[in-house]
Amino acid sequence: MAYQTRLLGRQNKITNTSGLAPGYIQANLLVLPRQHARDFHDLCLRNPVSCPLLGMTHPGDPHSIQPSGCITTRDFDIRTDFPMYRVYRGGKSIGSRRDLLDVWSDDYVGFLIGCSFSFEAALTAAGLPPRHQKTNSMVAMYRTNLPLLPAGIFTGATCIVSMRPYRQDRIQAVRDVTRPYLATHGEPVAWGWEAVIALGIKDIQCPDFGDPPDLEDGEVPVFWACGVTPQMAVESAGDKIEDLVFAHEPGHMLVTDYTAEDLQKLGRS
Amino acid sequence: MAYQTRLLGRQNKITNTSGLAPGYIQANLLVLPRQHARDFHDLCLRNPVSCPLLGMTHPGDPHSIQPSGCITTRDFDIRTDFPMYRVYRGGKSIGSRRDLLDVWSDDYVGFLIGCSFSFEAALTAAGLPPRHQKTNSMVAMYRTNLPLLPAGIFTGATCIVSMRPYRQDRIQAVRDVTRPYLATHGEPVAWGWEAVIALGIKDIQCPDFGDPPDLEDGEVPVFWACGVTPQMAVESAGDKIEDLVFAHEPGHMLVTDYTAEDLQKLGRS
Repeated sequence: MAYQTRLLGRQNKITNTSGLAPGYIQANLLVLPRQHARDFHDLCLRNPVSCPLLGMTHPGDPHSIQPSGCITTRDFDIRTDFPMYRVYRGGKSIGSRRDLLDVWSDDYVGFLIGCSFSFEAALTAAGLPPRHQKTNSMVAMYRTNLPLLPAGIFTGATCIVSMRPYRQDRIQAVRDVTRPYLATHGEPVAWGWEAVIALGIKDIQCPDFGDPPDLEDGEVPVFWACGVTPQMAVESAGDKIEDLVFAHEPGHMLVTDYTAEDLQKLGRS
Repeated sequence: MAYQTRLLGRQNKITNTSGLAPGYIQANLLVLPRQHARDFHDLCLRNPVSCPLLGMTHPGDPHSIQPSGCITTRDFDIRTDFPMYRVYRGGKSIGSRRDLLDVWSDDYVGFLIGCSFSFEAALTAAGLPPRHQKTNSMVAMYRTNLPLLPAGIFTGATCIVSMRPYRQDRIQAVRDVTRPYLATHGEPVAWGWEAVIALGIKDIQCPDFGDPPDLEDGEVPVFWACGVTPQMAVESAGDKIEDLVFAHEPGHMLVTDYTAEDLQKLGRS
């Protein structure tokens, strides 16, 4: 099922991947010139909640990911199998692309970062379905003032969070269900209306990415770290990266061959 | 040399361990009841810059650490080999002890956390000796507003940082020297006078732990994550932990048998 979903992404036939191929781990993308790969790798190790590293390519090879369990099919291409890509130059988003075939070079390294869509099936199974799946919209994502701990050229960035509304009396259950998913952001980083202020979010109805959320009476926002955060690291690096940088379009993920059970066996879930 | 230093700690003949047994990795301590060990383990995995986990005991066994490279001598006792211990009840420090022999039970799990003293030899070798070693004082440590990402019962804590002053034009070199030491806090989390404000530090001359710092003209403060942070997590858990909790007295570390090279081989330095 994961492979079929990747093929649909390759054909640009899907957009919001939330809820697709339930049980399979979804991944965010960052593609960087080789000379900056070490700094970004360090950034992931220092910020595993925002940037949980699932795997990476060998420099220049778009067809295989290490560790190999992440993508098990020989038919794979990191340049095409995401439904949509973003392009950055000098730290600024300059547009979207359906694939990276024309702009790829042997100098690029691709990083796959765990995505919180991965634990949504577990929330649903526990009777705690994320609202945005019911409303068929994209999860709301916000810029925050939560610092991303610096590594090399990546300094001064802050974290992006995704938000799912829950009643206050469900928060402990929501934390418990998502806690084991360490490789895909794990339990929430903050919750409640006081967290909106603490994180520096100005208006919960105006997310920076995704769709405005649908909060019902008595619900409070619950915030998870978000894999769009690496794009904030790219913004912070600005002109220190001379070449083009590529990422996924927020919400448009890659479905990997990892299941939650695979990550548990690896000691990372 | 590491073993001899541990014996001196056992005999309570040393206090500030900064600069002792250069090249060997030093460790902070937290000892928790078994029922809370999983939450604290998650806390370390989510916050590896503040809480880099070097090793832990089997429940109730004070004599061996996993992974085994951390302590290679058979003659080891986590209850005695730190120079001084702190005792916590209900999230509050209630005093110091020379050893934990009378208060240990089979229900306890000990965690060793990497310490920034470990990279001070590397700074000195690079011509960037930490000031507090020259002045023979204890490194200054501060409470901050930097959130520790929550895990289980450990919610709402903030990070402690240690501070070493450097000239602005040395900061890039200081970052580069300490960056590889991922298992012992790695590169700084923030630097410069603007960081003092951003971290919520009220008075640089009034540290919360350690001695007041000695800044020379033209120097700015450089802040690293600090292994006293787990004690803030214990404060945040408060009455959720009914039993006594033990930690090291700040500045009074355990010298392990790990060298920086050992940690590099393990892929963690």
